[in-house]
Amino acid sequence: MHATLKEIRKTPEGILKAQEAFERIKEEVTLPRNILYTGCGSSHFLSQLLAMATNALGGKGIALPCSELVYSRNYYAINSPELIVAISRSGETTEVLKAMDVLNIKKLGLTAYESTLSKKADYALIVDTPEDSVVMTHSFTAFYFSYLQLLRESYGLQAFNAEEVSRLTRDVLKNEGYIRELVDEFEFSNVIFLGSGILYPVALEAMLKMKEMAIFWSEAYPMFEVRHGFKSIADDNSLVVMLVSDPFEWHEKLVQEFQGQGAKVMVISEKELGSEYYLQVAKVDELLMPVVTLPIIQLLAYYKAVKRGMNPDSPRFLEKVVRW
Amino acid sequence: MHATLKEIRKTPEGILKAQEAFERIKEEVTLPRNILYTGCGSSHFLSQLLAMATNALGGKGIALPCSELVYSRNYYAINSPELIVAISRSGETTEVLKAMDVLNIKKLGLTAYESTLSKKADYALIVDTPEDSVVMTHSFTAFYFSYLQLLRESYGLQAFNAEEVSRLTRDVLKNEGYIRELVDEFEFSNVIFLGSGILYPVALEAMLKMKEMAIFWSEAYPMFEVRHGFKSIADDNSLVVMLVSDPFEWHEKLVQEFQGQGAKVMVISEKELGSEYYLQVAKVDELLMPVVTLPIIQLLAYYKAVKRGMNPDSPRFLEKVVRW
Repeated sequence: MHATLKEIRKTPEGILKAQEAFERIKEEVTLPRNILYTGCGSSHFLSQLLAMATNALGGKGIALPCSELVYSRNYYAINSPELIVAISRSGETTEVLKAMDVLNIKKLGLTAYESTLSKKADYALIVDTPEDSVVMTHSFTAFYFSYLQLLRESYGLQAFNAEEVSRLTRDVLKNEGYIRELVDEFEFSNVIFLGSGILYPVALEAMLKMKEMAIFWSEAYPMFEVRHGFKSIADDNSLVVMLVSDPFEWHEKLVQEFQGQGAKVMVISEKELGSEYYLQVAKVDELLMPVVTLPIIQLLAYYKAVKRGMNPDSPRFLEKVVRW
Repeated sequence: MHATLKEIRKTPEGILKAQEAFERIKEEVTLPRNILYTGCGSSHFLSQLLAMATNALGGKGIALPCSELVYSRNYYAINSPELIVAISRSGETTEVLKAMDVLNIKKLGLTAYESTLSKKADYALIVDTPEDSVVMTHSFTAFYFSYLQLLRESYGLQAFNAEEVSRLTRDVLKNEGYIRELVDEFEFSNVIFLGSGILYPVALEAMLKMKEMAIFWSEAYPMFEVRHGFKSIADDNSLVVMLVSDPFEWHEKLVQEFQGQGAKVMVISEKELGSEYYLQVAKVDELLMPVVTLPIIQLLAYYKAVKRGMNPDSPRFLEKVVRW
């Protein structure tokens, strides 16, 4: 079995590891209100998730890719943050280490290992979810959950019940067969992921997973932005994946619009919205939506890769740790 | 001749129209320091450019797509802006009109016509660059330049010399033959646009133009982010377009890295950086880089569309004004 598939299946266990990491750090660290997040690739999409969670919980979060923070930060609105959260699975990515030196404020490293990052940081949230795969899968979800718990605790809210969240991800993984069948049945030649708010970075991560594992044409947009030009590429060879946390009539119209172009739509939500493919997810706190949707989009990328004869364990041209 | 090509060629004239619009409004409006920008599709990428220019000139600018501002704004860091700048070529886009009602602050409409948007706004910057084409081309550049002039004037800086900028775009358009030849000679099957800072939204706009006109696989990333997974899709069928305002060794390494994957690289910069294709642009103030690079990427999308047998004047599935 591919290492990547094993990693995805470890999501429920990752949530428990995430909880342990949170419990190790919670006495030591209380997060401030104004936080700058940075990472590269998947870790940048994670940094966007964390910034969004920060804003939703009443703080002020912004996210920048490390290289933009290092080389072009005068173009971005950075509001005297009190903390930089730097994210890297390996903790050895050149750009993330550079980015930490940019502002002379406290630093928190979010990583899977004792590493240069964890040593350089004032605080380290080390989530013990090492992965054999080149691409990030269950560690991404675990990092998100661990930090989310710390954020809730810091902002005076009750942390989520990790056992319960772990069970939710176990339920989600039961859709593996459905996803494999979808991929077998419909040989789409491009895929567009859509999500709004906290689900937009999930759509971006889905786009990247598809590219890394299946070397495949994939796109991601904020839900309704897609109508403004981008949708021209969707036809009867296209799959559109809509991640929806609070469905209303525009979502149904959007499904119909894509169907009118010949595309097939997969909806991941509490309602089916007239789509060809549907994965029901439990009604959860919106900030938990990434946790229950990430394993689905990871499995979709994995099975598409296998279907296309790619080896998702060793993606073309990629390395596990990106250095300069 | 296609209307779209005519529109692109009108860029030098558009700059002069932009200057007139700026001169009409400059006595009436002084922009504040803290501004929220919003638009959809191309107009959202323009809103990102304007936010970046605002930050670079010492203000505080953030940009959100209209639909995210309307439906998911609690996830974004919006810092009590003093003004919303709402952008729409037609001034009739449903989402932009909705977005204007979201915050009870002053509104400036940036548009090509007397329209619902211009009437709804407290101030209107009407840049007289109507277009026969469905896709935005020279009006995009003109909108950017007109607002940039207003921003400079408002922040106590001297406005640029519009005649000179218009001449610069005339020089840039002389590369039309080179671009047509590139497209004829190299039948790339996907294209990645890269830019950092103020050139990142230009890369995004290039990606969208390619999609709208040529119905084609196109991508855009912040310059060095591309190494973090996304680059897996680049091979000997790929063109990578690098927009560079301040070249250093990492750019040269990146060119080599893509060449090592078999891709061909086109550099638009003051230095050639070892690329297969090279368009030299004049050394200008960095905030003018969008003005001198936009016509190039528009021509690239136009000629790719023609080469692929598409009609860029009537892109598949798209309408000139997007309504709900």
